[in-house]
Amino acid sequence: MNPQVVMSGIRPTGSGAAHLGHWEGALKSWVKLQETAQCYYSIVDWHALTTEYQDVSNIEANVRQALLDLLAVGIDPEKSVVYLQSAIKEISELFLLLGMMTPLGWLERVPTFKEQQAQLSDRDINTFGFLGYPLLQTVDIVIMKADTVPVGEDQVFHLELAREIVRRFNGLYGDCFPEPQPFLTPIPKLPGVDGRKMSKSYGNAIFLSDAAAVIDEKIRPMVTDTRRKKRSDPGVPEDCPVFALHKAYSKADEIAAMAEGCRTAGIGCLDCKKILIANINGFLEPFRQRRGKYEHISVRDILEPGNLRATQRAKQTVAQVRELMKI
Amino acid sequence: MNPQVVMSGIRPTGSGAAHLGHWEGALKSWVKLQETAQCYYSIVDWHALTTEYQDVSNIEANVRQALLDLLAVGIDPEKSVVYLQSAIKEISELFLLLGMMTPLGWLERVPTFKEQQAQLSDRDINTFGFLGYPLLQTVDIVIMKADTVPVGEDQVFHLELAREIVRRFNGLYGDCFPEPQPFLTPIPKLPGVDGRKMSKSYGNAIFLSDAAAVIDEKIRPMVTDTRRKKRSDPGVPEDCPVFALHKAYSKADEIAAMAEGCRTAGIGCLDCKKILIANINGFLEPFRQRRGKYEHISVRDILEPGNLRATQRAKQTVAQVRELMKI
Repeated sequence: MNPQVVMSGIRPTGSGAAHLGHWEGALKSWVKLQETAQCYYSIVDWHALTTEYQDVSNIEANVRQALLDLLAVGIDPEKSVVYLQSAIKEISELFLLLGMMTPLGWLERVPTFKEQQAQLSDRDINTFGFLGYPLLQTVDIVIMKADTVPVGEDQVFHLELAREIVRRFNGLYGDCFPEPQPFLTPIPKLPGVDGRKMSKSYGNAIFLSDAAAVIDEKIRPMVTDTRRKKRSDPGVPEDCPVFALHKAYSKADEIAAMAEGCRTAGIGCLDCKKILIANINGFLEPFRQRRGKYEHISVRDILEPGNLRATQRAKQTVAQVRELMKI
Repeated sequence: MNPQVVMSGIRPTGSGAAHLGHWEGALKSWVKLQETAQCYYSIVDWHALTTEYQDVSNIEANVRQALLDLLAVGIDPEKSVVYLQSAIKEISELFLLLGMMTPLGWLERVPTFKEQQAQLSDRDINTFGFLGYPLLQTVDIVIMKADTVPVGEDQVFHLELAREIVRRFNGLYGDCFPEPQPFLTPIPKLPGVDGRKMSKSYGNAIFLSDAAAVIDEKIRPMVTDTRRKKRSDPGVPEDCPVFALHKAYSKADEIAAMAEGCRTAGIGCLDCKKILIANINGFLEPFRQRRGKYEHISVRDILEPGNLRATQRAKQTVAQVRELMKI
């Protein structure tokens, strides 16, 4: 089936904004899908509360960053409906209504429930809202009657829960929601600048908003294949995180030349890195230009039309749900 | 403290409507409080879904019955704000927001959670919505910034939860909600027509909407003190449910006369019942007249002004909450 109606969300959390891993794993698909489907892209600030409710001081700034990231990568608010979750009251209403028929066990068995509680053990997230997090995700999707959700392979479980809730609702009250299908995005193998998986929380990420000088600062000191202690030691490119980044952001002939130069010690690591720096900066340049254009805009002004369109669609869905649930 | 702002709710569930037990245990206080405080009285149809979500066919009719009961007992929509819970979208929004900071354990330890699951074992109510039921009650109260909630002694625990949630919210984000205080209503000792506690689910209730002929039909066959096998056998009034009802609905001199007549076999049980029937009918007569006046009204028309006033107050509260939670 061709995606007709697409929904996805970005969490306004963390100190930085979207990084290359987010681009490869999600945003690239978002940009592509907006050419052929009606896309609903939400900045999910209520979701941020599930883990950040004890310190809400950064949410507003993070919403701004998230919006700038979307605009920078090329999400076009004329094509896609870009909106703020908390502006759509109907989402909270549908959350309440679908909660009535959602078995507790379905939520308790979501793998991330126990995992995240362990991971974020510094915070008290054993809350009703945190347990309801995957239900809120379901509501985000079904309130727009989305048929397609771009997800990484690691999130297929969440989408399966949404499909189960949809089946249960349609069975109890009558056909209302389509079963959302995954639009699978391969999980990117991008290393961060320390060689581990690129991740905001490891502090090893290259952000889409990084200036050219920052890219330089981050990549120059990267550890390369440890065999190349001296300039004259040959290395194994497959063991070098710089090479892994080349594979994503350099042209085929350059990748081949880097591999050859590494294996033969024909090129020094710094020269190799300089080429990568230039290529990543080249890749990020159009993002930076768009971001520059928007840097001083009012978040409210940009989101307003999307909020209205999203509200309109959500209202229709909730009216239908109320009729089916006789409430 | 004198009650300034009062909030309470009536569930539109079950086959019948309010009975004498509801009057004694709650509605009597509601009527009294509206003379001295600003009262918010809600028909809580979303709450009905927590236990009835699998069969929603009766909710609309039950809302009508609940409203007629309120009007019949003398709740005055000019004095009190009478409204339909589901018309106030802000309640669902505050439910979502307060859920973020409500520990799961607080909800799991509410005694009615396990009890009702056992009692209503024919239904599948192990749901997210059912677990969230006391949180939704809390929201009903705090969204109106009520300082007083008329409750039976058996419900003090629920109100304590509301107070805990208020304290946690005020502590995390800043002062917003008053801690609601209980306005204690003694639990009525009213027996039903079979001698057990009057309860809708026992099928032994005298409803406020019962016609005079129905009262007659229900009270005539009541079992009395089993010592009075024959008209000439003396009885013990304290062991007779008819006498218990006399104590609630007959005048002091009649009560004394009934007791005396029972102990001396000076009066037959049927004569004793006829007096009770007349007194209960006399008590219910003003209710019936008011109900008759409203019988054919449009529920929507009656609730509309209350819905507007309740929405207005709820909007103010939620705006303040959003500002405090920076969302």
